[in-house]
Amino acid sequence: METKALKRPAVIFFDVNETLLDMQPLKEKVSQALDGRKELASLWVTTMLQYALVDTVGGQYHEFDEIGAAALQMVASKNNISITEEKAKETLKPMRSLPAHQEVPGALSRLQEAGYTLVTLTNSANQALEEQMTNSGLKQYFQRLLSVEDTGIYKPHSRVYSWAARKIGVRPEESLMVAAHGWDIAGAKWAGWQAAFIDRPGQTLYPLSESPEITVPSLTELADILIALEK
Amino acid sequence: METKALKRPAVIFFDVNETLLDMQPLKEKVSQALDGRKELASLWVTTMLQYALVDTVGGQYHEFDEIGAAALQMVASKNNISITEEKAKETLKPMRSLPAHQEVPGALSRLQEAGYTLVTLTNSANQALEEQMTNSGLKQYFQRLLSVEDTGIYKPHSRVYSWAARKIGVRPEESLMVAAHGWDIAGAKWAGWQAAFIDRPGQTLYPLSESPEITVPSLTELADILIALEK
Repeated sequence: METKALKRPAVIFFDVNETLLDMQPLKEKVSQALDGRKELASLWVTTMLQYALVDTVGGQYHEFDEIGAAALQMVASKNNISITEEKAKETLKPMRSLPAHQEVPGALSRLQEAGYTLVTLTNSANQALEEQMTNSGLKQYFQRLLSVEDTGIYKPHSRVYSWAARKIGVRPEESLMVAAHGWDIAGAKWAGWQAAFIDRPGQTLYPLSESPEITVPSLTELADILIALEK
Repeated sequence: METKALKRPAVIFFDVNETLLDMQPLKEKVSQALDGRKELASLWVTTMLQYALVDTVGGQYHEFDEIGAAALQMVASKNNISITEEKAKETLKPMRSLPAHQEVPGALSRLQEAGYTLVTLTNSANQALEEQMTNSGLKQYFQRLLSVEDTGIYKPHSRVYSWAARKIGVRPEESLMVAAHGWDIAGAKWAGWQAAFIDRPGQTLYPLSESPEITVPSLTELADILIALEK
């Protein structure tokens, strides 16, 4: 647990997949579709994130779960496993009903009571995001649900962060990004935001980016730190 | 093997890593550094490509082998393996002395004799590219060695392809990209180029992009097709 000089943020932006929601049930479905090869689940996630950015730099846009299904087909093909487009899309369906990590509702509730404005900022498309937040029971804690879909580009593109801050009416330095992914922390820092890294198992920071102001094992410790900050 | 309507290109642009050069010796070094876990080599490659684009969309630039070393540290950390920055950089050194795939020199030589202009277009930085082409003995076949370093952004960003065509003085539709990666084929097609996919083991196209004009198992069949085209 580490805290650099931190200023009370006007708005806290939360990444959704893995940061708030537990991807494990989805990874298990993905492994099953890949002949039970558990080690391929990480490769699938990374391929999905890579191709979201391939789309972005190529001037294209597809919804995140469509890219996820394409990534699943690619990982399968590279390992001589055959998965139809239909099967890939079917496999990805649990992405919309992922459970919240155990500590998340309590921590969000405390932050809300402490007067913080909470907003999502996710690579999930609007409709998927709406379903994810409703199904996980987390929707009540957020004042706004923002998705990159409205920008047509994916995080960690700098313009996503500047768009989100402008949309909510805050300056970059008043914004705090909370994420369990090194690339999201890197993108937020490069955009002039503060950042809090949730160091969940299997996650890591990008060594070539700036450090976040906060590194904690879960949202519980994040809430402790933020609630203790002076107004 | 598949050929769509194909026009004789004015210039043939070649991707380097995996397309011309065999990454296998490097992947073995990487697996050794990762406690001998062979299945992590693909995750390392994908993470390296993902973070090259993380840099690009975040407005940053680091040389490709520096990103490769950072990716190695991240994959290690996610799997509870410890690799220092120094060890990671040491592990990546063979990237500059990769051997050419067996059929490559013969195929490039035939294309050169047939009057084609051959140019590299790679994510490797200029100095690394120079060493790669000298060490593999392929330098003699190319009229120009282009690296994304001069643009400060990574393939498959559309601007890399438009920059390369402009630099050589050809129009997009006169350019042919030859690559063993689905993302490079996607980027070239989106940029208005023709494309040839080298379907090496473990490689696959991106299902959400346009098909390339040519799909062949190696550069031998590519040379056959291109040499048979009318001037």
